[in-house]
Amino acid sequence: MASISQMKDPLYVGKAIRAQLEHEIPKDLPLEKDFREGSDYTITDHVHDLHKSLCTDTRTLELVTALIDALHTFARKTKPTHAEWIKAVSLLTRAGQQSTPEVNQFVLLSDCLGLSVLLDELEHPKPPGCTEGCEPGPFFIDDVPEIPSGGSLATSETVGEKLFFEGSVKNVEGEVIPGAVVNVWQADGDGFYDVNSEVPSATNDRGKIKTLEDGSFSYRGILPTAYPIPSQGPVGEMLRALGRHSHRSAHLHFHITAPGYDDLTTALYPSHSPFLGTDPVFATKKSLICDLEQDRNADNWKRMGFSDDEVQEIGKTSGRVWLWRYNFVLPSVEAVKEFKERANLA
Amino acid sequence: MASISQMKDPLYVGKAIRAQLEHEIPKDLPLEKDFREGSDYTITDHVHDLHKSLCTDTRTLELVTALIDALHTFARKTKPTHAEWIKAVSLLTRAGQQSTPEVNQFVLLSDCLGLSVLLDELEHPKPPGCTEGCEPGPFFIDDVPEIPSGGSLATSETVGEKLFFEGSVKNVEGEVIPGAVVNVWQADGDGFYDVNSEVPSATNDRGKIKTLEDGSFSYRGILPTAYPIPSQGPVGEMLRALGRHSHRSAHLHFHITAPGYDDLTTALYPSHSPFLGTDPVFATKKSLICDLEQDRNADNWKRMGFSDDEVQEIGKTSGRVWLWRYNFVLPSVEAVKEFKERANLA
Repeated sequence: MASISQMKDPLYVGKAIRAQLEHEIPKDLPLEKDFREGSDYTITDHVHDLHKSLCTDTRTLELVTALIDALHTFARKTKPTHAEWIKAVSLLTRAGQQSTPEVNQFVLLSDCLGLSVLLDELEHPKPPGCTEGCEPGPFFIDDVPEIPSGGSLATSETVGEKLFFEGSVKNVEGEVIPGAVVNVWQADGDGFYDVNSEVPSATNDRGKIKTLEDGSFSYRGILPTAYPIPSQGPVGEMLRALGRHSHRSAHLHFHITAPGYDDLTTALYPSHSPFLGTDPVFATKKSLICDLEQDRNADNWKRMGFSDDEVQEIGKTSGRVWLWRYNFVLPSVEAVKEFKERANLA
Repeated sequence: MASISQMKDPLYVGKAIRAQLEHEIPKDLPLEKDFREGSDYTITDHVHDLHKSLCTDTRTLELVTALIDALHTFARKTKPTHAEWIKAVSLLTRAGQQSTPEVNQFVLLSDCLGLSVLLDELEHPKPPGCTEGCEPGPFFIDDVPEIPSGGSLATSETVGEKLFFEGSVKNVEGEVIPGAVVNVWQADGDGFYDVNSEVPSATNDRGKIKTLEDGSFSYRGILPTAYPIPSQGPVGEMLRALGRHSHRSAHLHFHITAPGYDDLTTALYPSHSPFLGTDPVFATKKSLICDLEQDRNADNWKRMGFSDDEVQEIGKTSGRVWLWRYNFVLPSVEAVKEFKERANLA
């Protein structure tokens, strides 16, 4: 093992390192063991030992050790060839280069490998009886106008068939939660959100609604349709190599908050939507899939709050309003904390 | 599960997907099972099932299945928070954006996590008794001039103390291998390769030498010194977070080929070099570390082939020539094949 003085000796250490060493004298360690594939002491042990000796942050050490284990186990199991390694390096490099502030390819990659949904499940586990969660996706906006329960989220020009959504927010004990804030956002009948539609607007098909005294809320909107995630870049290339498509099932997004309760981010899917079993981001959980009804009675449309003009228009076009009902169940902050602790012990 | 006709129905499928569907009708699958963390059927099973249903290439399926297992196991074990996930996404994105044709950050990342050396061990395993291998690094050039054994690899201006290298190439049975081609490349006394030195040149400190009838070869060169891998980008950031430095130990690179034998890519390290135990790319294997000698006898320098001017210069400066000896042992192509097959069965 070299001495500290050797580390700065021009005989042993080149110009570029000596320039750096003015600010930093790295620790050196003895290389005591042989690491050969097949022997007891492998390169994996060597990497771990180096990190154990040098890394002083406990969480960083925990993360890097588990990551090395995961990657080295993967390598030993699949033995990627040099040519496959070059393909992977190329895909990752292009993923960085083709990322934009709007579409980050590594976020997409995490979504399409099921990692994003898994991480959400691990950070926000739902005790039994509670509504399951899923990723908010890229179109969530926290600061949106509040509309009263029963109001409309869509303008009269919004493309698509009319929808009436009726929901409630309760706790696990079945008690109603009045004043819960329900942030809803959704695609229209063309499969576009307000922010990415052909004529972008900031607040169509989205809004905040407060639950009433009985925990219920409702709104008039549009039946959402399926839309694709961006598939031009390396992640789309990966999906095609796997025989997968990029089409998300139709859905409504919800972000629900109430004091004392764990925030719920989730989405609901109509059971008639295509792509439920092949959703590219694995967010179509079975408990979040709803059977919708069709109401063909114009008197009911009026009671839902549609205007006379809208009622006339519905009568002349689809002749129906879609009815969507769901009862959300929130866990308390305490319950989630206890649930996490039990899961960590198990 | 939706029907094929529903998949193109504007009621269910938005504009953007319908445009894509002109070329492609994706398969849909039933979503039959609940996947919840803690239940028998998890999101990991769902991702696997989707790939099993859709991916028709066996090797791609094998790789993606093992990768999903590795990443999901890592996630369950360490439970990365949303904030940690954002940091990882940012690091990977910048790794792509800051990669250049000369320095690819994902190659560096693979090197610094021990993956590159591990993959080389798996693709080119060395049966017992053979010289261990390691990564060629970024400075290998295949097409370089041949010099006769005993010749000089360095110009008279090359910075650094003089070196005389004596080696041999044999097989596992101890038989000499005449006519083996030994491609040598190395950094100079300033820690620079010809291609990245302050005055770049294509062929200093590198060359191809053929072994003689007795399997031996030798050359006159320069004692190499330590140099840093690029540490300005995200990988350097990672090294610093782990308490690691970016300084490679001094070394000579070798790429040795002979008909009937498996190519050997390796490097040798002087035991006096700093950073042997903390090499950033984990290529400093114990069996590749050599004790060097110093020859202070001017008569010997002449016999090594140094010119009268050089002998005078050495006498006035360091007063020594470094002696470095190593006997390389190559496995036959057959032996590596058998060794791999046995390793796969084990």
